Amino acid sequence: MTGLNTLFEVQGRSLIAGQTDAPRAQVGRAFHGFNPVEGSVLPPIFYSATAQEVDAAVQAAVSAAPEYGALSGQARGQFLRRIADGLDAAAGCLIEHAHAETALPRPRLTGEVARTSGQLRHFAGVVEEGSWVMARIDTGNPDRTPPKPDVRSMLRPLGPVAVFGASNFPLAFSVCGGDTASALAAGNPVIVKAHPAHPATSEVAGRIVADAVQACGLPTGVFSLLFDEGHAVGSALVMHPEICAVGFTGSLRGGKALMDLAAKRPRPIPVYAEMGSVNPVFILPGALAERAEQLATGLHGSFTLGGGQFCTKPGLVFAPVGVSSPFVERLRQLTDAGPAFSLLTSGIAAVYERSVAARAHLQTAAGAEASAGWGARTVLLETTFAGLDAEPHLAEEVFGPTTLLVHLEGKPEMIQAARALEGHLTATILGTEADLAEYRDLLRVLESKVGRLIFNAFPTGVEVCHAMVHGGPFPATSDGRSTSVGSQAIFRFARPVAYQGLPQSALPEALKDENPLGLLRMWNGAWNGDASQTETRTGKP
Amino acid sequence: MTGLNTLFEVQGRSLIAGQTDAPRAQVGRAFHGFNPVEGSVLPPIFYSATAQEVDAAVQAAVSAAPEYGALSGQARGQFLRRIADGLDAAAGCLIEHAHAETALPRPRLTGEVARTSGQLRHFAGVVEEGSWVMARIDTGNPDRTPPKPDVRSMLRPLGPVAVFGASNFPLAFSVCGGDTASALAAGNPVIVKAHPAHPATSEVAGRIVADAVQACGLPTGVFSLLFDEGHAVGSALVMHPEICAVGFTGSLRGGKALMDLAAKRPRPIPVYAEMGSVNPVFILPGALAERAEQLATGLHGSFTLGGGQFCTKPGLVFAPVGVSSPFVERLRQLTDAGPAFSLLTSGIAAVYERSVAARAHLQTAAGAEASAGWGARTVLLETTFAGLDAEPHLAEEVFGPTTLLVHLEGKPEMIQAARALEGHLTATILGTEADLAEYRDLLRVLESKVGRLIFNAFPTGVEVCHAMVHGGPFPATSDGRSTSVGSQAIFRFARPVAYQGLPQSALPEALKDENPLGLLRMWNGAWNGDASQTETRTGKP
Repeated sequence: MTGLNTLFEVQGRSLIAGQTDAPRAQVGRAFHGFNPVEGSVLPPIFYSATAQEVDAAVQAAVSAAPEYGALSGQARGQFLRRIADGLDAAAGCLIEHAHAETALPRPRLTGEVARTSGQLRHFAGVVEEGSWVMARIDTGNPDRTPPKPDVRSMLRPLGPVAVFGASNFPLAFSVCGGDTASALAAGNPVIVKAHPAHPATSEVAGRIVADAVQACGLPTGVFSLLFDEGHAVGSALVMHPEICAVGFTGSLRGGKALMDLAAKRPRPIPVYAEMGSVNPVFILPGALAERAEQLATGLHGSFTLGGGQFCTKPGLVFAPVGVSSPFVERLRQLTDAGPAFSLLTSGIAAVYERSVAARAHLQTAAGAEASAGWGARTVLLETTFAGLDAEPHLAEEVFGPTTLLVHLEGKPEMIQAARALEGHLTATILGTEADLAEYRDLLRVLESKVGRLIFNAFPTGVEVCHAMVHGGPFPATSDGRSTSVGSQAIFRFARPVAYQGLPQSALPEALKDENPLGLLRMWNGAWNGDASQTETRTGKP
Repeated sequence: MTGLNTLFEVQGRSLIAGQTDAPRAQVGRAFHGFNPVEGSVLPPIFYSATAQEVDAAVQAAVSAAPEYGALSGQARGQFLRRIADGLDAAAGCLIEHAHAETALPRPRLTGEVARTSGQLRHFAGVVEEGSWVMARIDTGNPDRTPPKPDVRSMLRPLGPVAVFGASNFPLAFSVCGGDTASALAAGNPVIVKAHPAHPATSEVAGRIVADAVQACGLPTGVFSLLFDEGHAVGSALVMHPEICAVGFTGSLRGGKALMDLAAKRPRPIPVYAEMGSVNPVFILPGALAERAEQLATGLHGSFTLGGGQFCTKPGLVFAPVGVSSPFVERLRQLTDAGPAFSLLTSGIAAVYERSVAARAHLQTAAGAEASAGWGARTVLLETTFAGLDAEPHLAEEVFGPTTLLVHLEGKPEMIQAARALEGHLTATILGTEADLAEYRDLLRVLESKVGRLIFNAFPTGVEVCHAMVHGGPFPATSDGRSTSVGSQAIFRFARPVAYQGLPQSALPEALKDENPLGLLRMWNGAWNGDASQTETRTGKP
C-alpha cells in the first residue's frame, strides 16, 4: 500500500477548503480502515475532524457560495469534467484503495470509477446545455388595469450542501459521487463527510476534487472533505445553521436519524436520504411457465450481486409456485452452489449474521460457509403468504446475500401483497405481455409504491440517464419527490426565484429577452417560444 | 342573510365526499362566523367535524385516488373549469357571505372571485396541455454490454392532500383556492379544513366543488370539506396515515406547528406552509431624489391594502433618508389622513393592537381611530439602523396596517441590513436603473433571501402566471423549493415515477413512442425530440 499512499500522499486528515494544515485547537479521534477479507487494520491513521474544522469548512463554503453560484454553466461543466478526468487518471490508485478497503472485486470497482466520472460528465452536459434551470418568462401587459407585470423565474442554488458518503459505493455514492455531482452542478458548495469504511479511497477522491477546484480557479471553499469515525461530525454538519441541504445514502436508521435531527433545526432544511428498500419482485405465471430456469438464474445473480449490498437488491420475491416447481428447485441449486462473500464492514456482517439466524426456520438453501474476516454465506429463505402475514417483520430489508421467496396461491394474494407494501425504490414484474395485460391492476398498485417500475429485468442495475428515478416513497427515501440518480437529481439542490420588473441589464443571462444561452424556455406560456416568435405551444392559461 | 343561506342551503355541516347527512357517532362542537365590523355573531350554527368524519373523508379520498389519478388531463381540466364556472355563477352569493364574514370590501372580493376562478382555469390549461408531467424518455441500447434499458419517467400524483383555508383570502386561498386547484390539477383528492373565520363562504365554495365532482361523474371522495373551530380536525388530518401532503397558508406559529406535527408521523410527508414574511423594501437614493411623493403614495397604498392583511405586505422599509425628507413627510401625512380598518378576526385585531402598543415609542404617524368591532388604526413606525440593531424583534411580522421605516446612513448599512435578513416571500428595490447598477451587490444578496425580487413595484400584487414564485426560504415558507401561486405550484403535489422496459401497451399515454398527447418531452436527452426525429437540442450527456 505504501506506493499508493505516496502517489497521492494519503495523510489521514480532513481537507478544509483544499487545506490539511490549518491550525487546529485539538486533534480529532484517530481511526483507520480495515481489510474486510482478513478483518485486519489498514494504514494510515485517519483523524476525525474537530468541531472547529466542521465550522471552518462550512464558513469557507458560505464565502464561496455567491461566486460559485453565479458561475456560468460552461464554467461549472468544465469543473465537473476536470474532476471526471482526474478520477479516470487516478483509476488504478482509486481501485486499489477501494479494493483493499471494501473487498469489492476489481472489475466492479473499475466499472464504478467509470460510472462516477460518467456521472460527473452527465451533469456537466446538463449544466453546459443549461435548460435545466426551467426558465419561465411572462412579459406581462403594461396596458392592462392594473398593469400585468413582467415576471421571470429560474432555478437557483440553495447554498452549502452536506453530503454523506455511502459504504456500499466507495466511489459512485461517495466523495464525488452522485449527490456531490448534482449539488455542484446546481451551483452549491459541497462538504462531504467521508464514510469511515473507505477513508483512503475518500481522501484520494477528495484531493482530485480539490485539485480541480484549484485548476479551475474557483474559491477553495467550494469543496471540503471531513473524516469521522463516529457521528459527531455528521450531526454538527446537519445542525450547522449555514448548511442548506443534506444528501445521504445508507440505512433507514441512519437516514431517519438525520431527518429527525434536521427537523429540530431552528431553520429546517431538506434532507435527501436514500434509505432502506426491499425491492419486491412479482413473478407472473406465464413467465414461470416459459422460462423458469432463466428467471432463477437472473434472480440469483441479482440478489447476490456485490454480496447483496445494493440498495436495489431484490429482497422479497412473490411467485405463484409450489414447493417443488422447476423455478424453486433451480433457485435452491444455484444458492447451494454459490460462493461466500466478504461484506463491507464488521457491522454489516454482524447484522447480516443475526438477521439470517433469526430467519433460520425459513432457510431452504445456503451457499459456501462464510469465509474469514467479514464473510457472509448466501441464504435463500422461503415462506408462504400466510407465513409472511404472520411475521410481517420478515419483509424488512436484510443487507447482504439473501432473499425471501414468498409462495402465493394466485392473483388475489399477489394484489393483496402489493397493497400491503410500504414505499420502495423499485418494484419488478417478471412476466409475458399476456401476463401484464391480465395483471394491469398489479401494475397500478405498484406504481403508487415505488420510484421505478421494472418489467422483465432485475432491479440491481441503475442506469445513469435523464429519465431515471432512483427514489420512492418513505421509507425508501426521505423525500419521494426526488431522485438521487440521473440528471433529474440536480433539481434537489435548487429552488425557483422570480424576478419582477427588472431591466434586461440586471437579469441573469438565462432570463434575458434575446436568450443568449439558447435555452429551452417557457415564454408567455409557450414552450420553446421566444421574444421574436408567436406561441408555438401554449399552456392555454 | 336568509336569502343567501337558502340559495345554497348553508347547513353548517362538513361535506364528506359530497354528503352532509352521513350517520355520525356524535355531533362536533358548535361555532359560528362573526361580522368583524360589529363583532357580532352571524348565522347559521356550524358543527366541527368529528374524528369519524375526518377518517371517513380520508378513506373516501383513498378510494378515489387511483381513478382520479388515472384521469386524462382533458377530464381533469373539464372538472377544474366546471368548478370555476360554478364560482363565477355564484359570485354574488360568495361575495355577500365573504363580505359579511371578513369585512373585506366588495370590490376586493369581486376581484378575488375572478382570481379564484381564473386560477382554476389556469391550472385547467396546464393539465389540458399536459407537458407539466415532464416526460423523459431514454430509449436505451439493447446492443450495448450490458444492454442499456429503456427508461421513461413522468410526474404522478402523491395521493390525498390536506388543504388548510387561510383567513385573509376567503376564496383565493381557501376551499377552492390555489392549493386545492394545484393539488386537484396534479391528480390528487383534496380534503379542505375550512378556516373558521368564514364558514358560510367555505360551505358555498365546498358545495360548488362537490357539485362539479358529481357533474363530471368523478368518485365522490375526490373532495371533502371539514369544519372545525379549533385545531383537532387539522391535527387529525395531518397525522392521518393516508394523507400524503399538506398545503397551508397562515401564520408562522400555525405553519411551524403543522411542520412539527408532520415530522412526528411514522411516515413523514411534505408540508407546504406559506407563513410569515415581512417583505423588505429598499429605497435607493436616485428614486428618492426623483419621485419621493410617488414612492410615499405607493408604499402607503401597499402597506394598508386589505388592512395590511397580505402575506406580501411591505413591513420593513429601508431608505437613506433623514427625519424630515419629503418622502418621510409625505408618508406621515398619508398615514395621518388614512382611514381605520376592520380586521379579519378578533384574534388578529388583538395581536395587532398589542404589537403596535409594544412599538409605541417608534410611532410617528397614525390614521383614524380604530372603529367598532375588530377595528385597527393605521400606524407608521420609524427607527434607525442602530435602533433596529438594538431591538431586532422589531423586524418581525405585524399583520395589519403598519410598517416600519428604517432610516439608513448609506450603502454599507443597506447591504448589512440585507445580509441580516431571514427568508422572505419578496424583497423590493425601488430605484433608478443607475441606482440598480450601483447596488448590484444588494440585488445579489436579496436574491438569496427571497422567492421573488421586485424592481419598482410594490409586493402586494401577486400575479397568477407561469413564472410567478410565491415562496421563499424558511421562515417565509416551510419549503423554499416551491411556489404556492402560479402554474409551478402543481409540482408540489407530484413525484417522478420511472417505467423500465414496459411494453408500449402498458405505458401511460404521456410516455408512448408516438406521443399521442403531443407533449413537450425530453427524448434521449433532447428537448422536443421525438421517435422520428434526430436530436434538436441536446443535453450532451
